[in-house]
Amino acid sequence: MTTMREVADRAGVSIATVSFVLNDTKPVTPATRERIETAMAELGFRRNAMARALASRRSHLLALAYPALEHKLGSTGMEFVTGAAAAAREMEYHLVLWPVSNDATELGELVADGLADGVLLMEVLLDDPRIEVLQRAGLPFSLIGRTADPDALDYVDIDFDQTMTIALDHLQELGHQRIALLQEGPLQRLLQSYGPKRRTRQAFRRMTRHRGLDVVVLDCPPTVGGGRQAVTRLVAEHPDLTAIMVQNEHAAAGVVSGLQSVGVAVPRDMSVLSFLTSPDMAMMSDPELTMLRAPGTALGDLGVRRLIDLVEAKPRPTEPAAPQLIPCELVAGETTAAAPSR
Amino acid sequence: MTTMREVADRAGVSIATVSFVLNDTKPVTPATRERIETAMAELGFRRNAMARALASRRSHLLALAYPALEHKLGSTGMEFVTGAAAAAREMEYHLVLWPVSNDATELGELVADGLADGVLLMEVLLDDPRIEVLQRAGLPFSLIGRTADPDALDYVDIDFDQTMTIALDHLQELGHQRIALLQEGPLQRLLQSYGPKRRTRQAFRRMTRHRGLDVVVLDCPPTVGGGRQAVTRLVAEHPDLTAIMVQNEHAAAGVVSGLQSVGVAVPRDMSVLSFLTSPDMAMMSDPELTMLRAPGTALGDLGVRRLIDLVEAKPRPTEPAAPQLIPCELVAGETTAAAPSR
Repeated sequence: MTTMREVADRAGVSIATVSFVLNDTKPVTPATRERIETAMAELGFRRNAMARALASRRSHLLALAYPALEHKLGSTGMEFVTGAAAAAREMEYHLVLWPVSNDATELGELVADGLADGVLLMEVLLDDPRIEVLQRAGLPFSLIGRTADPDALDYVDIDFDQTMTIALDHLQELGHQRIALLQEGPLQRLLQSYGPKRRTRQAFRRMTRHRGLDVVVLDCPPTVGGGRQAVTRLVAEHPDLTAIMVQNEHAAAGVVSGLQSVGVAVPRDMSVLSFLTSPDMAMMSDPELTMLRAPGTALGDLGVRRLIDLVEAKPRPTEPAAPQLIPCELVAGETTAAAPSR
Repeated sequence: MTTMREVADRAGVSIATVSFVLNDTKPVTPATRERIETAMAELGFRRNAMARALASRRSHLLALAYPALEHKLGSTGMEFVTGAAAAAREMEYHLVLWPVSNDATELGELVADGLADGVLLMEVLLDDPRIEVLQRAGLPFSLIGRTADPDALDYVDIDFDQTMTIALDHLQELGHQRIALLQEGPLQRLLQSYGPKRRTRQAFRRMTRHRGLDVVVLDCPPTVGGGRQAVTRLVAEHPDLTAIMVQNEHAAAGVVSGLQSVGVAVPRDMSVLSFLTSPDMAMMSDPELTMLRAPGTALGDLGVRRLIDLVEAKPRPTEPAAPQLIPCELVAGETTAAAPSR
């Protein structure tokens, strides 16, 4: 392994100067820094991040625990991951991918290794076994998403009520009174208490009742075929529906093509609004879906910054910071229009 | 910070025994290990992964450099990342996400930090500026993908020739003689030398010439609308085409719906074969696409294992290991069938 002395000799400076550059302990002229860094590169000197980590008692590694097995992270999920990784880099931390099941055992093993300064949880369940593992380990952690009772936790999440308000306002302004909510189901055992589905359904039922709207709520598999079949039955059984809110991005394109295949024109006869998705998925439908865009990048970014606040807080806060909720943004596509007059 | 003595006292064992558990240096009875690990958890003792890394001169961190900005990593790209992260975990390494541009500057800064034992490059360009940065830093690295002249590099990649052979055999067995290749384009400046597009096009031209097939090669934007428009023009200008190979997964669903909208039934009148994609994307089309499935998980896994071999090799090998190429797998969907007899 190359030593600091070798770097110093090659750069024609003192070891102390090399150390100033390595540890940013004192200002060094750009020219000198340039000479030293060139010498390091030429000698293959490896700045000892580990030693610095040991000194600071911090690894500057943040673990992103994501259950890749239970839930495919498609384009929409990838926006959360990319937002988190970019924020970590900007804050001079590194995001480590921990592909672990929602089941807590694997996470426990990784936490015991003590490598990460903190953990960011994604795909949070209403009753998430991972929380207790992290609490017992005493490791700082934040959630993107939340449990059924999250008051004691540090979390950021989608503002489902605000998002539903935006969605219903949009449809009501267009004159829609009879609206269906089509979600993903049946869910695998582990995901049965998946928060976003439950919260969206509850907000939909509560708000539509309050607004005096007629509603239907149903599930279908997360496939284009599933969406086609579901919507074909739906329009047969509920001929007076004028709008469908789809929280099932893999089925949404099938909802649109299924409607068209049974002679229901989108959006002339039926409006389709894709709830909680990303542009990539909206573009997979023809015509392109009007959507409530998931704030993936923003939540990934926010989750990491809050986790870093926790990691660096001295002393460790006894209360979590106030949660931050971000609504989805309405992005106009070509699948919503004025309700047909009957 | 909790000390080993505190852990030993609480667990009622000697410091040496705690150290055996920490460093796996000597066998310890499950019961004792359990007591010690409970004591660590209760005291919030953090096994010092940093100290061990320093001792072993290895961080056990592998960096995955992926240019999230240039290229959206959708479901297909995510399979590479997940396969790599899972293999790293199995080998007791950790995969760190480095979202850096194909442009080399950012990568240089990260490499200089010396945190990672090695780097895995994805989305490799035929002339990739990141290679020189890694070579100058003397850091072990492997590629998933390859440059125009990869002989001196350690890489795994898709076997484009073998994949094209499988694709053309499939279409020829069905009697197709006039075949189009629809790829993604125009590409952003940085991606203009993106390997997979060039290699696929070259293999397609070479092999179809050799087999005496009539071909058309064209590009369209990576959107459903782009696929629709391109295919509408295509069938108007080339009415005798019977099959379209699509290497543009975001346009593929539009190719199918576009054909149907102009009265060309899929697969009865026209076969559509999606080249280099994943089940998630194949399912976004209706009917579901027959595809050449990208070996994402396998290549992610293989890339990481080869990188770890490099990292742990003593002495550092002077020659790269033989490259490994994996073909895509033909997965039957509902969009290819016997060529119509004219």
